[in-house]
Amino acid sequence: MTTQAAVYRGDRTFTLESVQVPPPGRGEVQIDVAYCGICGTDLHVYLGHMDARVGPARTIGHEMSGVIAALGDGVEGLRPGQHVVVRPLDHCGDCPACRAGHQHVCHNLKFLGIDSDGAFQQKWTVPAHTVHPVPDGLDLKHAALIEPLAVACHDVARGRVAPGEDVLVIGGGPIGMLVAMVAREAGARVTVCEINAHRLAFARRAGFDVLDPRDGDAAAAVRAATGGKGADVVFEVSGTQPGVDLMTAAAATRGRIVMVAIHASKPQVDLFQFFWRELDLLGARVYRPEDYDAAMRLLAAGVVDCDAFITDIRGLEEIQAAFQALTESPDTMKAMIRIAEDA
Amino acid sequence: MTTQAAVYRGDRTFTLESVQVPPPGRGEVQIDVAYCGICGTDLHVYLGHMDARVGPARTIGHEMSGVIAALGDGVEGLRPGQHVVVRPLDHCGDCPACRAGHQHVCHNLKFLGIDSDGAFQQKWTVPAHTVHPVPDGLDLKHAALIEPLAVACHDVARGRVAPGEDVLVIGGGPIGMLVAMVAREAGARVTVCEINAHRLAFARRAGFDVLDPRDGDAAAAVRAATGGKGADVVFEVSGTQPGVDLMTAAAATRGRIVMVAIHASKPQVDLFQFFWRELDLLGARVYRPEDYDAAMRLLAAGVVDCDAFITDIRGLEEIQAAFQALTESPDTMKAMIRIAEDA
Repeated sequence: MTTQAAVYRGDRTFTLESVQVPPPGRGEVQIDVAYCGICGTDLHVYLGHMDARVGPARTIGHEMSGVIAALGDGVEGLRPGQHVVVRPLDHCGDCPACRAGHQHVCHNLKFLGIDSDGAFQQKWTVPAHTVHPVPDGLDLKHAALIEPLAVACHDVARGRVAPGEDVLVIGGGPIGMLVAMVAREAGARVTVCEINAHRLAFARRAGFDVLDPRDGDAAAAVRAATGGKGADVVFEVSGTQPGVDLMTAAAATRGRIVMVAIHASKPQVDLFQFFWRELDLLGARVYRPEDYDAAMRLLAAGVVDCDAFITDIRGLEEIQAAFQALTESPDTMKAMIRIAEDA
Repeated sequence: MTTQAAVYRGDRTFTLESVQVPPPGRGEVQIDVAYCGICGTDLHVYLGHMDARVGPARTIGHEMSGVIAALGDGVEGLRPGQHVVVRPLDHCGDCPACRAGHQHVCHNLKFLGIDSDGAFQQKWTVPAHTVHPVPDGLDLKHAALIEPLAVACHDVARGRVAPGEDVLVIGGGPIGMLVAMVAREAGARVTVCEINAHRLAFARRAGFDVLDPRDGDAAAAVRAATGGKGADVVFEVSGTQPGVDLMTAAAATRGRIVMVAIHASKPQVDLFQFFWRELDLLGARVYRPEDYDAAMRLLAAGVVDCDAFITDIRGLEEIQAAFQALTESPDTMKAMIRIAEDA
């Protein structure tokens, strides 16, 4: 059997290739991929930032939904035809993090779709333990948002957001917006801080208070809006030095700051504020299985207006154009690739 | 009535002055001070770093013990002759931090001995709510260690140190050593990282594993000693950029880093490690009332070898020399001033 796969060949180039697909091995599940969203990490791959990690020929993609096509030996609790999503984490089970119960941050974590082939192909074979069935009634296009929504659920859980708390989200891209939505569902008053006019407008349409730091002292604005207190929980999703400056300045005494962004360089951090106001900084990466459960519940509850959130859908044959558009279009929120021709 | 007081007059100068002492007002307690240790903050005052905050004539000192001399109206539960220590924090009761139950990090916190006169004088008058009675049998010289020991108890509580965990203390000065002792009492295996040879020797004599970062890659040494895991809890007490570099490098995945040090500048922090390994950074400042209770319990249990820890005791008339010695002597651990002539 063959599958049509988009293979990243370096230099901002995907090629569509027919790839041989062996039947699923023991403990594996073969999925007919329906949809796969483009993650910020995928964009980094496309831009060449991760060539050393992905190698010369890699099918990427992990924000997916699909239908089980075949089961390997020894797989229980799943059946062909079932609608599923994949939690694309394969842990070693033997490192200190795994042994301490933190498999999602395993020292030898294999991220499916980066460290092995991913979901920008018609047939994707994955370990059974990564597969989460989704409710039959759920639109598979919407189900492809479960993976990024699980990231947001994990972030909000790490921040221990409680009803009535004031939350500041620094950076209103796809993950920042999902964090804002999950935090609001948890009962928080949420403000989104962003400089991109399209994203500011998106956040406003989604019903959030917004803050453009170019309009003045953003931390002072947060304090003014919270009776002098500051934000109980701050999510740093911008990955910028100004975002890092704002996170400590805007946090309430004893506030929690969740580090969602990937800071490739080492920014300067106002550690004095951590001491003086007993702040917490809590790193958050990917998700645990229960974050997938939470994401499915929230999606079913309508917490995300999926049709507004998904701003671009193209077929697999247009993947190159979809990535290129994403680098050029400041008004895209979530771009998605339709993989199954009948989806 | 007059009291003999050491008044900081700027420019590394204390003058001994006879000061009028009014009787304690309503809700106040007057204490005959027995001993008062010299804190790192006192040293900063002496060196002129805090002149703007303390003003031109301030009696500093807060690591004290003493005997109640007189009670103002309305003070209950205390009696003259009682041995006491003071938790030198006067909170406003009305700011967001106080209203949230975090009085020890009150936005308008008055620190007795910095923002008002302190304990380097024979008679000290303080609000009754700051007074903690100590067991009659406790040596008042040892009781003067309760305040810094309460800092360490607060730090270890913030770090949620659990039995069997690996703890790294970066910086083996007085607070670092007390943190190490409290963490060991909590059941942790503790390593102290330090570059001062006298302090390394002190830590070794106190039974701790020690690490001199000039001997090689300290983070690698911590990993090697912990089966590749790293330190479950790191206390950054050095206040240096190399300490900040080590804290992220040496922490275990999902480890906790307690920010004890005061970083006056903004160091570069490897925020990527917070994301990648889901680290926690937990700021810790001063103490809560229960940290005083814990410190008294630990002192009574012999967790601190007080006579080894107190390396210098001088009379009030020698306070100037005591401060000068502290700036020159790399082998002092805790220097203390005997205030009461009969103590």
